[in-house]
Amino acid sequence: MKNTLTSPAAKAGYESVRRHNLSLVLRTVREEGEVTRARVASLVGLTRAAVSSLVEELLALGCLSESGKTSSGSAGRPGTVLTLSRTGPAGLGVEINIDYVSVCAVDLTGTDRVRVIEHTDHRGVPPAEVLAHAARLTNRVIGSTREQQLRVVGVELALPGLVSGGVVRQAPNLGWSRVAAEGIFGQALSTLRPAGRALAVGSDNEANLAALAEYWFGGLGGLRTFLYLTGEIGVGGALVLNGEILRGAHGFAGEIGHVVVDPQGPQCRCGARGCLEQYAGRAALFEAAGIDCGQGVRGAAELEQRAAAGDPRTVEALRTAGDRLGVVLAGAVNLFDPEAVVLGGIYRNLMPWLIEAADAQLTTRVVSGRWHEGGSRLRASSLSGDAARGAAARVMYEVMENPAAYAVR
Amino acid sequence: MKNTLTSPAAKAGYESVRRHNLSLVLRTVREEGEVTRARVASLVGLTRAAVSSLVEELLALGCLSESGKTSSGSAGRPGTVLTLSRTGPAGLGVEINIDYVSVCAVDLTGTDRVRVIEHTDHRGVPPAEVLAHAARLTNRVIGSTREQQLRVVGVELALPGLVSGGVVRQAPNLGWSRVAAEGIFGQALSTLRPAGRALAVGSDNEANLAALAEYWFGGLGGLRTFLYLTGEIGVGGALVLNGEILRGAHGFAGEIGHVVVDPQGPQCRCGARGCLEQYAGRAALFEAAGIDCGQGVRGAAELEQRAAAGDPRTVEALRTAGDRLGVVLAGAVNLFDPEAVVLGGIYRNLMPWLIEAADAQLTTRVVSGRWHEGGSRLRASSLSGDAARGAAARVMYEVMENPAAYAVR
Repeated sequence: MKNTLTSPAAKAGYESVRRHNLSLVLRTVREEGEVTRARVASLVGLTRAAVSSLVEELLALGCLSESGKTSSGSAGRPGTVLTLSRTGPAGLGVEINIDYVSVCAVDLTGTDRVRVIEHTDHRGVPPAEVLAHAARLTNRVIGSTREQQLRVVGVELALPGLVSGGVVRQAPNLGWSRVAAEGIFGQALSTLRPAGRALAVGSDNEANLAALAEYWFGGLGGLRTFLYLTGEIGVGGALVLNGEILRGAHGFAGEIGHVVVDPQGPQCRCGARGCLEQYAGRAALFEAAGIDCGQGVRGAAELEQRAAAGDPRTVEALRTAGDRLGVVLAGAVNLFDPEAVVLGGIYRNLMPWLIEAADAQLTTRVVSGRWHEGGSRLRASSLSGDAARGAAARVMYEVMENPAAYAVR
Repeated sequence: MKNTLTSPAAKAGYESVRRHNLSLVLRTVREEGEVTRARVASLVGLTRAAVSSLVEELLALGCLSESGKTSSGSAGRPGTVLTLSRTGPAGLGVEINIDYVSVCAVDLTGTDRVRVIEHTDHRGVPPAEVLAHAARLTNRVIGSTREQQLRVVGVELALPGLVSGGVVRQAPNLGWSRVAAEGIFGQALSTLRPAGRALAVGSDNEANLAALAEYWFGGLGGLRTFLYLTGEIGVGGALVLNGEILRGAHGFAGEIGHVVVDPQGPQCRCGARGCLEQYAGRAALFEAAGIDCGQGVRGAAELEQRAAAGDPRTVEALRTAGDRLGVVLAGAVNLFDPEAVVLGGIYRNLMPWLIEAADAQLTTRVVSGRWHEGGSRLRASSLSGDAARGAAARVMYEVMENPAAYAVR
C-alpha cells in the first residue's frame, strides 16, 4: 500500500494527472489511427514506461486493441500497434422525433455499429408511452451491441424541443411541456433490464446533437463556427461556436424555427404567428406542393421526386420556402456571423430547389456583404441531421475524456 | 546580472510568472479598493517579500498609490494602504458616431476623468476628415489628462459599423466602406504630437464597446449573458456571452439593426428592405412622431417631452416601434437565449413608452415561455450606451492584464 501515507489532496492530484494522461493517450491513438507505444510516448512527451502503464490500463478497460502487426517504416525491433477498440465501450443515441424514433450505437471510433429506426407518429401519444417505446427499442439495440462484443456505457436522448436538466420544457410539435424525459426513460429502461447495471442517461435538443454529429463526422472541412438547421416537421437550429454548442443562459439557444417571418402570418403550434416553421417546416412544404400532410417520410421522398421532375407547383413551393428561409437566415447571420449555414433534415436533398432564392435574400440582407465572397456559404448537411449519431458520439466523447470512469464493475 | 546563466526559456517562464503576479496584485487592489500589503499577500497566497517587490514595481509604474493611513481594524504595527492610482496610466475612448464624436479618458479605477462631446453631422463628410477631426479632439483630451497628472497609454476607437483588423468594413449610416480607420486616425494623431510617443490605437464596433461599458460599470446586477441594443440613427447590437463579446467568425456578430421586420418594408441604407432600423431607428421614430428628422439630439429630447406630455401621435409612434422591436428581439432571444435584453442609446429614456408593446411580442414569441418568469427581462441601460467609456476601459483592461508593458519609456 504505497499510497497509505499520501495525503488526500496529493492523491486527488495524482488521480487527476492519471486521468488526464489516460485521456491524452486515448486521444492520441484516435488521432493517429494506428500507432506504436514508442510513437505515443514521443507524441505526448511521457516516458515509455509511463505510456506502457497507461496503455495497459486502457487495454484492460477495453478502450484499446493491440495487434502484433509491425508498424510500417519503423526502424529496430518490430513493435505492436495500438488502435481504438471496436469491441469495447459503446455509446447509445436515441432520437425521439415527431414521427420516428432512431436508436444508434457507436464505438470509440465514432462508427455507427447498430441502427434501428421506427416510423410512428408521436403526436397525441402520452409522453410516458413514447418514452417507454423508445426504451424498448433501446433495449433491443443493447442486445445487438452485445452480439457485436460492445458494452454500452451510456445513453443520450435527442429530443425535438427545449431541453434542460433532463426535462423537456417545451416541445410544441410533440405537445410536450415539462416532461422529465431522462427520468421516465431511465426508469423504463431499468425495468426492462432487471439484472443489468443502471445506465447513465443524458439528454439534449436534437438539433444541437445533429450539429455536433455534423461537426464531428460530416464533411465540413474545418468549419468551426456555423449555424445548423434541420428541417423536419419542426425546424430545429443550433449555433456552433468554435466547435462548441452555444447554449445561451438557460440552454435554449438556437430556436430558429420560431423566428418570425411575418408577424401576421399563420398560427404556429408555439402559440405565436408567422414563425419560420409555418413557411419552411415539412407540413408547410407539403401543403404548398399539394402533398397529403399525413405522409411523413414518403411525402418527403415524393416532394423530392416531384421537384426533380420539374413539377411547377412543387418547384414554386420550394422557391418560396427558400426565400422565407433566406430572410430568417439573413437575420441569424447578421446576429451570429457564422462561417457558413448548414442545412440538414429534409433540406439536405431539397437544396437544389431552395438555394437560389435563399442565397438571393442572404446576399441582399447580410450587412457585412461577405455572403458571396468565395461563393455561397449555404451548405447541405452531409449527414441528413443525424441527431442519434451525435447523441451516441457524445457518450463516447465522455469516455474519451475519462475512460476509467467507464470500467466494467 | 544574476540572470546571465538563465536559459531563454526559463527567463521567459520567469517573466510570464512575474507578469501574471503583477496583474494579480493589481486586480486584487482593484477588487479590495483599499488594502495593505499584508492583506494582499494573504489573499493571493504569495510571500510578503514577493508581494512587496511586486508592489514596488506597480508603484514605479504609476499603477498604485500608497498612503500612510492606518488600515482600519488591523492589529499590531500600523500598515500603509494601497489603492489604484488616480494619477497613473489612463485609457482614451473615442466614439465616432453618425452625428457626434465623444472622447473620454478613464483612469485605472474606470472613473471617467475627462469627457468631450461634439455634435456634428458626419454624413457625407470624407472619412479622413472625420478621423482627423476626432484626432484633434483626442489630442485636446490628452492635454487635459496631463493637467490631471494622468498618462494616456492607448486609444480605442468605437465605430458605428462592421470593424475588423482596424478597418471599418461597412458603416452604412456613415456611408463608409473599407476605411482603414485605425491607420488614418493614428497617423493624424501622430502628426499632432510630433514630440509625443506613438500611442497604440485599437478599434471595435460601438455597440460592442457600449455593451462592455454596461457590463463593467452598469447596474446589471450579475448579468453575464445578455443582448444589448443601442438606438441612435442606426440600431447597434452586441451579444455578451458569459461576460465576453460574441464576435462570430469574422467579428461582425450582433448586427440586429439589419434583422428584417418586413421583407417588403422601406428601403434601408444597407441595401436591403424592411430592416429593424427602418422601424425603430431614430429617423424612423422622428418621422412617425412628426419631428424634423434633421434635429438629432434636440429631436430625441423633444420626442421624450412629447411622449411624457402624452402627445397621441408620439405615444403611438413609440408603441409601434416597441412592437417591431419586440418582434425582432423575440427572434434574437429564440436564437441566443440571453438572461435579459438591455436597451441603450435613445431607447433608455423612451423605455416607458416602448416596453409594453415590446414585452407583449416577447411574451408571445419566445418559445421557452421564460420571458415573464420573474417579470420582464427587458431592461433600460444604465449608461445610455456609452461606447466611449467602454473603449477607454478596454485600454485600462489591457493595462490590468500586463501593467509592465505600459511603463514610461
